[in-house]
Amino acid sequence: MATQTKPVLYGYFRSSCSWRVRIAFALKGIEYDQVPVNLIKDGGQQHTELFGAVNPMKQVPAVKIDGVTLCQSLAVIQYIEETRPGPRLLPADPKTRAKVRMISDLIASGIQPVQNLSVLQKLGEDKAQWAQHFIDRGFQALEPILKETAGKYCVGDEISMADCCLVPQVYNAERFKVDLEQFPTIKRLNQTLLEMEAFKVSHPSRQPDTPPDLQA
Amino acid sequence: MATQTKPVLYGYFRSSCSWRVRIAFALKGIEYDQVPVNLIKDGGQQHTELFGAVNPMKQVPAVKIDGVTLCQSLAVIQYIEETRPGPRLLPADPKTRAKVRMISDLIASGIQPVQNLSVLQKLGEDKAQWAQHFIDRGFQALEPILKETAGKYCVGDEISMADCCLVPQVYNAERFKVDLEQFPTIKRLNQTLLEMEAFKVSHPSRQPDTPPDLQA
Repeated sequence: MATQTKPVLYGYFRSSCSWRVRIAFALKGIEYDQVPVNLIKDGGQQHTELFGAVNPMKQVPAVKIDGVTLCQSLAVIQYIEETRPGPRLLPADPKTRAKVRMISDLIASGIQPVQNLSVLQKLGEDKAQWAQHFIDRGFQALEPILKETAGKYCVGDEISMADCCLVPQVYNAERFKVDLEQFPTIKRLNQTLLEMEAFKVSHPSRQPDTPPDLQA
Repeated sequence: MATQTKPVLYGYFRSSCSWRVRIAFALKGIEYDQVPVNLIKDGGQQHTELFGAVNPMKQVPAVKIDGVTLCQSLAVIQYIEETRPGPRLLPADPKTRAKVRMISDLIASGIQPVQNLSVLQKLGEDKAQWAQHFIDRGFQALEPILKETAGKYCVGDEISMADCCLVPQVYNAERFKVDLEQFPTIKRLNQTLLEMEAFKVSHPSRQPDTPPDLQA
């Protein structure tokens, strides 16, 4: 059976999109192997021919699973959801599912892509100011949405794909010194989620490729 | 029954993300009302308080449907898919669904956000060069992926959400003068899809807010 082979995650300890997938694997209790792709070293290992064959987009994460190679973190998470048992990452009710996808996409399409490495590298100056601006703008929208949808977690009291997206984005926000005091709901959810084992084991400070000085 | 009220689409004729949703509505045969949000006029109607209450992200599309307001085009399309009859926009097989989502997200997270209006407005100079660079980079990845997955359409011979994303992105590529001759699969799929009625009626040249000089 295809599911008997462990999935392989091509990721980078500090990549927020890789972290989303690590959280989902942890929540579902799925064991997997990691192949670190260092996005900085030697001009970026994602640009090698070897990795280009895995993901032509030259981005992490990419996942080999059940005989196929999948890229794009939300596509991977939803594939896991549809083929693996364990806690649901998308609720059963269509409207609630839509809210989970809306929040996930607001982060995955509306915030992260504009502050990711390849975009910042293309900018001449003001990289940090740019990232801060777009994360702040996104959080200004996310905060009132989450205020409506959140219970204990992003959408009600059940953990979901939206939570897999939120925590890594807050990690990026902190890196770029976004003032989180403006966003009490985001801050509260992030604190709650970081207490969970699945978010701890998947944290950038605890990965095989985490440099010694950044290890927890 | 909630589905008896027509959905309302807040969109803009030339917004590629709005067009994705218009295609999905057309493919499913769903009647809807449109509220045009002019992204250029008066500094952008998306910045009004009125629209901010609809979508705090100040972006189109937003859709009022079944008593809820949804933003993010792929969340909207998947909600429609899960609540409406008509041709499937996501295939039944999980691996094939994953490929549809991967291609959709490659466009919706990997290409469009980096060339959208709010990002281009934030750039000082070289707006067109920036957009061209990131669309070209995305298409360099998309072409080999589609070469593997495509049949008559993006994934096999069934129309899907991926097709709803592809055609509007090619439209943007043409606006920014990306050389499409490099991408024979993308070009071929786009031509096939543009022949379909659902892509014609939803085209930017045929919307209620299309300026007279851009009407087909």
